[in-house]
Amino acid sequence: MTTDTHPKQVIVEGSGFVVGGIAKGAAMLAPNMATMLAILTTDAAVDAAVLQSALRAAVDESFNELTIDGCTSTNDTVIALASGLAAPATLEQLTAALSEACRDLAHQMAADAEGGTKVVRVTVTGATDDASATAGARRIADANLVKCSWYGADPNWGRVVSELGSAGITFDLATVSVSYGPHTVCVNGTAAAHDVEAVAAYLSGKEIELICDLGLGSGRGSVLSADLTHGYIDENMGLS
Amino acid sequence: MTTDTHPKQVIVEGSGFVVGGIAKGAAMLAPNMATMLAILTTDAAVDAAVLQSALRAAVDESFNELTIDGCTSTNDTVIALASGLAAPATLEQLTAALSEACRDLAHQMAADAEGGTKVVRVTVTGATDDASATAGARRIADANLVKCSWYGADPNWGRVVSELGSAGITFDLATVSVSYGPHTVCVNGTAAAHDVEAVAAYLSGKEIELICDLGLGSGRGSVLSADLTHGYIDENMGLS
Repeated sequence: MTTDTHPKQVIVEGSGFVVGGIAKGAAMLAPNMATMLAILTTDAAVDAAVLQSALRAAVDESFNELTIDGCTSTNDTVIALASGLAAPATLEQLTAALSEACRDLAHQMAADAEGGTKVVRVTVTGATDDASATAGARRIADANLVKCSWYGADPNWGRVVSELGSAGITFDLATVSVSYGPHTVCVNGTAAAHDVEAVAAYLSGKEIELICDLGLGSGRGSVLSADLTHGYIDENMGLS
Repeated sequence: MTTDTHPKQVIVEGSGFVVGGIAKGAAMLAPNMATMLAILTTDAAVDAAVLQSALRAAVDESFNELTIDGCTSTNDTVIALASGLAAPATLEQLTAALSEACRDLAHQMAADAEGGTKVVRVTVTGATDDASATAGARRIADANLVKCSWYGADPNWGRVVSELGSAGITFDLATVSVSYGPHTVCVNGTAAAHDVEAVAAYLSGKEIELICDLGLGSGRGSVLSADLTHGYIDENMGLS
């Protein structure tokens, strides 16, 4: 059911070792790695426990931040293999290299999302805690009305704020701000003066940053997603 | 942001009284009446407390079972007004008439869903409890992959079962069955022999029943929804 038209691969140079990765996946990627397959390899000399710890940390901030259509799958796999032929690596070194590789592959998946025309990073800051921020970001990224507005390059912050307000997290409209990249379109829950043409140009790009500050605390969370398009429907309405 | 191209109205004859209703709403209708407005009127002679109780019961099994795109709104209203000019009505009589009116209006909203080409009633039976059944039904109805398959008249029961399995409810693949109307396409978690052309013809209709039996208990829940189409994207990608 998932089409995957592009090979996804990455090579990251560590300090005295190399990490390589390949992956597949284009939809059904939420919330935890679903319908994807990734294999990481390294020549670093590490034991299995260190490799496992590094992989878990790397996956949490990459594949587990993906959501294309909010749908999950019944199957997903991420494997890391180490040959031990190169230099020893510390947990920190290995985590850094694996994280870079996994983030790169996750971005490649979002860029290859079924029907997607742009990659959107949704970040929520100022939440009461990190879990609330992540829940808010995921709520936004999975909202069809928001995803359609990305497709149409429409800075529809009302839809964004509406999703934050219905996400089940601590929320106060009076302290919310919303920015698309450098363009702030909502401050304290009301429209902010902005250059309409510049915002439209920004939203017509292939890489969009949506930042929402709740103005309540220091909680922060982020997800990587894509827009909802005619192409997504074309790919998924047919007999499988 | 919500377009509403058709007036929605209903008249229900009670025993010695009449209930009339009008409503608007075409999207952002989940989970609790969001972005809708409905006004019910009756000439029944009832006091305010009875009218409130009857209305609450009627709304729970009509508007609160709607989900078009999983999105909610920040505003919704259902009001009932009674003139007292006709016969007295018991709570049961009034609830029955109001429920019929609200169900009718809710169905009209689903039929007018943004871009929707068909109304789909998703019912989950055999759950461990009613709340689990409703959660499962809502999960299915809000899944973009499932909604696209409805649009394409594709009896993709794998996507349906996948949503049930990731809904966070008690679930056993070995006891699940899935039927589209009279056509059973999955039994005990595997494909069931069915008449492909007859299923395709059924799914091409304007009214679809999707019934999933979890085979675990007596819990039952149901939601009313619509398919996800090119038209939905057309309506929601533009500048509002």
